[in-house]
Amino acid sequence: MARYIAHVNVMLRPLVNDPQGLAVAGGLQSLGFSGIQAVRVGKRIDITLEAASEVEASTAVREMCQKLLANAVIEDFEFEVAALATA
Amino acid sequence: MARYIAHVNVMLRPLVNDPQGLAVAGGLQSLGFSGIQAVRVGKRIDITLEAASEVEASTAVREMCQKLLANAVIEDFEFEVAALATA
Repeated sequence: MARYIAHVNVMLRPLVNDPQGLAVAGGLQSLGFSGIQAVRVGKRIDITLEAASEVEASTAVREMCQKLLANAVIEDFEFEVAALATA
Repeated sequence: MARYIAHVNVMLRPLVNDPQGLAVAGGLQSLGFSGIQAVRVGKRIDITLEAASEVEASTAVREMCQKLLANAVIEDFEFEVAALATA
């Protein structure tokens, strides 16, 4: 079994209201940053896992996203998987 | 002024305890996923902004991270900036 790291991004879908993003945008403007047009806040999830191959790791991570990490009604996910040096 | 999108990742530093990551790891194991070695949960922040150049956009985003988006005591940040087609 080899070790892989999956970087998963879970973001609210574009049409879903994002109050956290609006709050961050307001905070940045209050701090004097200009030119901010939009801020969206989502989750970044790093998963270290063992799998027989990169394809198998990808399949497992996609299933994790669908079953637990992302709410498909309001969120989109994307991820990339990379091999780690074995410990 | 051109438009840029910055993808910012803010993660807890490796030695900082991450209860949310532990909860996700436990949840995944309860769902039957095996081989999970570690899960870390952080933030993914997408910022659309106007700037005179990509370098200026990067400088602004780095300052945003330092002043608001990341808590340097316990969090690390990384980001990438890409040009957007002008609207």
